[in-house]
Amino acid sequence: MKSDSNTLTPELLQHMDAYWRAANYLAVGQIYLCDNPLLRRPLVLSDIKHMLLGHWGTTPGQNFIYTHLNRIIKKYDLDMIYISGPGHGGPAVVGNTYLEGSYSEIYPNISQDEDGLRKLFRQFSFPGGISSHASPECPGSIHEGGELGYSLSHAFGAAFDNPALIVACVVGDGEAETGPLATAWHSNKFLDPVNDGAVLPILHLNGYKISNPTILARISHKELEQLLLGYGWFPYFVEGHEPVLMHEAMASTLDLVMEKIRFIQHDARINGNNERPCWPMIVLNSPKGWTGPKMVDGLKNEGTFRSHQVPISDPATHPGHLQLLESWLQSYRPQELFDLQGRLLPELAALAPVGEQRMGANLNANGGILLRDLHLPNFRDYAVSVPIPGVGGIGDTHVLAKFLRDVIQANSLQRNFRVFGPDETISNGLGAIFEVTNRQWAASIQPNDEFLSTIGRVLEMLSEHQCEGWLEGYLLTGRHGVFNCYEAFVHIVDSMFNQHAKWLKVSSQLPWRLPIASLNYLLSSHVWRQDHNGFTHQDPGFIDHVVNKKAEVVRVYLPPDANCLLSVMDHCLRSRHYVNVIIAGKHPAPQWLDMNAAARHCAIGIGIWS
Amino acid sequence: MKSDSNTLTPELLQHMDAYWRAANYLAVGQIYLCDNPLLRRPLVLSDIKHMLLGHWGTTPGQNFIYTHLNRIIKKYDLDMIYISGPGHGGPAVVGNTYLEGSYSEIYPNISQDEDGLRKLFRQFSFPGGISSHASPECPGSIHEGGELGYSLSHAFGAAFDNPALIVACVVGDGEAETGPLATAWHSNKFLDPVNDGAVLPILHLNGYKISNPTILARISHKELEQLLLGYGWFPYFVEGHEPVLMHEAMASTLDLVMEKIRFIQHDARINGNNERPCWPMIVLNSPKGWTGPKMVDGLKNEGTFRSHQVPISDPATHPGHLQLLESWLQSYRPQELFDLQGRLLPELAALAPVGEQRMGANLNANGGILLRDLHLPNFRDYAVSVPIPGVGGIGDTHVLAKFLRDVIQANSLQRNFRVFGPDETISNGLGAIFEVTNRQWAASIQPNDEFLSTIGRVLEMLSEHQCEGWLEGYLLTGRHGVFNCYEAFVHIVDSMFNQHAKWLKVSSQLPWRLPIASLNYLLSSHVWRQDHNGFTHQDPGFIDHVVNKKAEVVRVYLPPDANCLLSVMDHCLRSRHYVNVIIAGKHPAPQWLDMNAAARHCAIGIGIWS
Repeated sequence: MKSDSNTLTPELLQHMDAYWRAANYLAVGQIYLCDNPLLRRPLVLSDIKHMLLGHWGTTPGQNFIYTHLNRIIKKYDLDMIYISGPGHGGPAVVGNTYLEGSYSEIYPNISQDEDGLRKLFRQFSFPGGISSHASPECPGSIHEGGELGYSLSHAFGAAFDNPALIVACVVGDGEAETGPLATAWHSNKFLDPVNDGAVLPILHLNGYKISNPTILARISHKELEQLLLGYGWFPYFVEGHEPVLMHEAMASTLDLVMEKIRFIQHDARINGNNERPCWPMIVLNSPKGWTGPKMVDGLKNEGTFRSHQVPISDPATHPGHLQLLESWLQSYRPQELFDLQGRLLPELAALAPVGEQRMGANLNANGGILLRDLHLPNFRDYAVSVPIPGVGGIGDTHVLAKFLRDVIQANSLQRNFRVFGPDETISNGLGAIFEVTNRQWAASIQPNDEFLSTIGRVLEMLSEHQCEGWLEGYLLTGRHGVFNCYEAFVHIVDSMFNQHAKWLKVSSQLPWRLPIASLNYLLSSHVWRQDHNGFTHQDPGFIDHVVNKKAEVVRVYLPPDANCLLSVMDHCLRSRHYVNVIIAGKHPAPQWLDMNAAARHCAIGIGIWS
Repeated sequence: MKSDSNTLTPELLQHMDAYWRAANYLAVGQIYLCDNPLLRRPLVLSDIKHMLLGHWGTTPGQNFIYTHLNRIIKKYDLDMIYISGPGHGGPAVVGNTYLEGSYSEIYPNISQDEDGLRKLFRQFSFPGGISSHASPECPGSIHEGGELGYSLSHAFGAAFDNPALIVACVVGDGEAETGPLATAWHSNKFLDPVNDGAVLPILHLNGYKISNPTILARISHKELEQLLLGYGWFPYFVEGHEPVLMHEAMASTLDLVMEKIRFIQHDARINGNNERPCWPMIVLNSPKGWTGPKMVDGLKNEGTFRSHQVPISDPATHPGHLQLLESWLQSYRPQELFDLQGRLLPELAALAPVGEQRMGANLNANGGILLRDLHLPNFRDYAVSVPIPGVGGIGDTHVLAKFLRDVIQANSLQRNFRVFGPDETISNGLGAIFEVTNRQWAASIQPNDEFLSTIGRVLEMLSEHQCEGWLEGYLLTGRHGVFNCYEAFVHIVDSMFNQHAKWLKVSSQLPWRLPIASLNYLLSSHVWRQDHNGFTHQDPGFIDHVVNKKAEVVRVYLPPDANCLLSVMDHCLRSRHYVNVIIAGKHPAPQWLDMNAAARHCAIGIGIWS
């Protein structure tokens, strides 16, 4: 194996290719094998799982990326986490954390030997085993697969207030067609290069979804480049399929990109340049199902949509399939990768970072470990006098705003609390917050703007998906926050709430994942104010939706007055591992009391709107 | 008023400016006045509504656009509808349909005279009146405001199979931050210039949301241009604030754009060019609250976020406000626009198109009028033998697929039936459809692709938002369709379903809006198959969400076998004005029977997943 590389020595290139082959081998093993994990004897039908489930297509590309990120983590001494955006990259993230050792540290029964390999393979997409995506069980993950579109939002959430962190975010080109992902590219208009970390998007252009091509792979190179430049990113293209050339191209590009990120950060942090930078990103154009079987049953497989799931589907009834699978597995030359005990050869194992620099062991991906309590002022100090029930006041959220303002102030040094919203923070009565902070905004600022600055504790973008995704990423990396939203529009994130609630539920069964701060929704501007927005705004069923989840995961609060709201918010900001929904009025009582009553009816399922 | 115009004669320019002033006057009147509609006497406090509600900011720009679209409709003899994307453009669409006469034809009590004007003003954002956006009550509208992000999806849905139609779609720059809108630009990869109509997006870059600037207004001109080019559009910029210059710029640009659309269509339809065209669009960069008060209470208003809602907020307690409002109203010189009876002067009224060419009277915006029944084969002919309950078969949706295939075939001439989905049509067992049609796809096609063509009855994009939005637009303009989706992911469109159900509910109370075809969801690939995607995929609560609506609007079907599914689909394709949710299995029974049972539990609210 030769290369006229400037970045990789021939030996390093050879080792990295072997490491990649090992990860690919583990992926095929996970999808197919229940026994004979090192192919010590010819493959027979009983080595193969009865039901073949899993997704090969995205996996070799992600293995390639992970292998190369390991190199730059070591070379540049990085603090980096990995987000797997394509839906079903499970075999890649599980396999790589196994190779680097972080998997076996958490799951000692999945040991780094032949017996562990057998269990690793068997558990994948198997009853009682693990799922086929980067689920909470997978070390290093903060991003649930399955429903697509939120990887880049989570990446930015993780990067805010994490100046040393680089979040490598693999964006699938299928995922890139979703709305939430399509707008998430604009998150770069909110990142502060001084106090936040960096996000490195790697758009994995492997060309296909389940059975369709992807849009981004079927527009011209020029259009794609314009699109990404228009989104404010500088794309570096790594394109091809020949491994040696691709290793060198990826390595040299990653070096370029890292130096550009360092330059941007240095320029902002040391030179004080506060222009919005054009951050680098990578477009990796590699075949779907790369290194998989070229042809299956007379049809092209590698580089087509047919490699999406299980390329060779029926070894049980097609003897040719069994043979093809064996040669596919052998093509990775496992005997050159693992020793007789089934351990990765030491010269390959040495390629991975060590300790907490391994992406499967990075503390940011187990945010509960890093979580620090908020400094909370005494909420009773903000109480208002309520001489008789239903007396008029300034509106409950207006009272709360002063408490939140002081929470922001009290935690300004530890920088671990943020308020998110789709341009409704003032409208929701929380304007007092802007007495002590601004909206963080990296795009241009003009004379008549208010409360905009490159530094600020409030993040506002007219995308409920972004607000939710940012906050989730922020919480999952060990911080605190509140999402304030009109009640009428929070249904937009119904399915994101589902996914986060599921993450919390599964995580709570994993002792090694420490509890994170709760996700707090503060919903105001209720549907019931028909005089103003009236039927413009949608129905109030979000709490109906939420209360479908178990009480171990969700809480819904309907505080009847401002003082109750203060105590509820204090409680929610101390709570861990819940989704808290707080419905609060911004208008002076007694109007608000009526609205709250309506909301209560809704909560118990009467469905007033319809 | 002078211009060295090539497009507009000085007289036409003057008349168009007057028409625009009239529309702006009507908008301010709607927001503020309950009496004295023609300012025949000095404005007094009792002329002003007690509670001032409405959104001025977006309105003058939309009035400007509507005025100019009227001109090209007449000049080019167009069939055009108008979609108002920004949230609260009610005063614009109501005012313009009033000026062109379509409003009074539907609501004779809102007559084109002084008394009608008074009622027009009073009803706006008033208890028992109309809402502040382009709601179903507004003639010419197929697009609910309020929750933002779906205008461009609706526009494309309206354009499919409507070769003579041009859909002018005003996209707000706030709206453009939402995920669904950000990905909707890619709809141009699905439009067939031969058999579909055209969509003309007009990105209204007025710079501000509620209290924040917009992202697209705060990136460089070059970045914005690259972004739109990258999305595959050719943007024409109309930028400025000086009315005379802007009228000429808009008029000459619209002429250019119309000629480009005609050229593209001619090239595809006559010359047979089947390359994906680069369709033109317009970026209208004009001040928010254009022509409104420059300063209010010492703060800049026109051209800032402060013009978003009611620029002059408190005439009751600030005498200066009353005076300012009066001079604002007088600045449009109503006496030069309306005669003594309160009718628009004839030379101005003559600028609007007549009859069904008026955008408020275009039949496509009242799709029930155009709706033609589907030719449906006898579903009994597709029945399978079920000798005993729970016997294995080929899977219910596989049986249904042959029926849907023949529905497509039977309606191939009238071109009014489509199947939408996020790349799951084959996975959901509906592959037989591809025996008679393809996926419509305007981007590049490569050798190993399957069932892709520039012409096809199936539209697949990995965005549930797009599928839903396209289908809604298709139905609202009088056609039929089915959205097939994994049950697990349909929560993504919870809030879009809300909005469509709300539209149906309100429309059903408007006798002039004829019933449209039902929105049919076919949900398969249930959450309950834990062996495969398992916890990757989200919860099954969509039908919980749906059954919160009234039975007049929604129906949920859980057919227990393939034959029942056939009859259900036949019924749904004949039904009108419902949202039908059909939960159907793709796997052979008896597995499916179990899943259906689980779904039934969910339907009655047990919430099994959580």
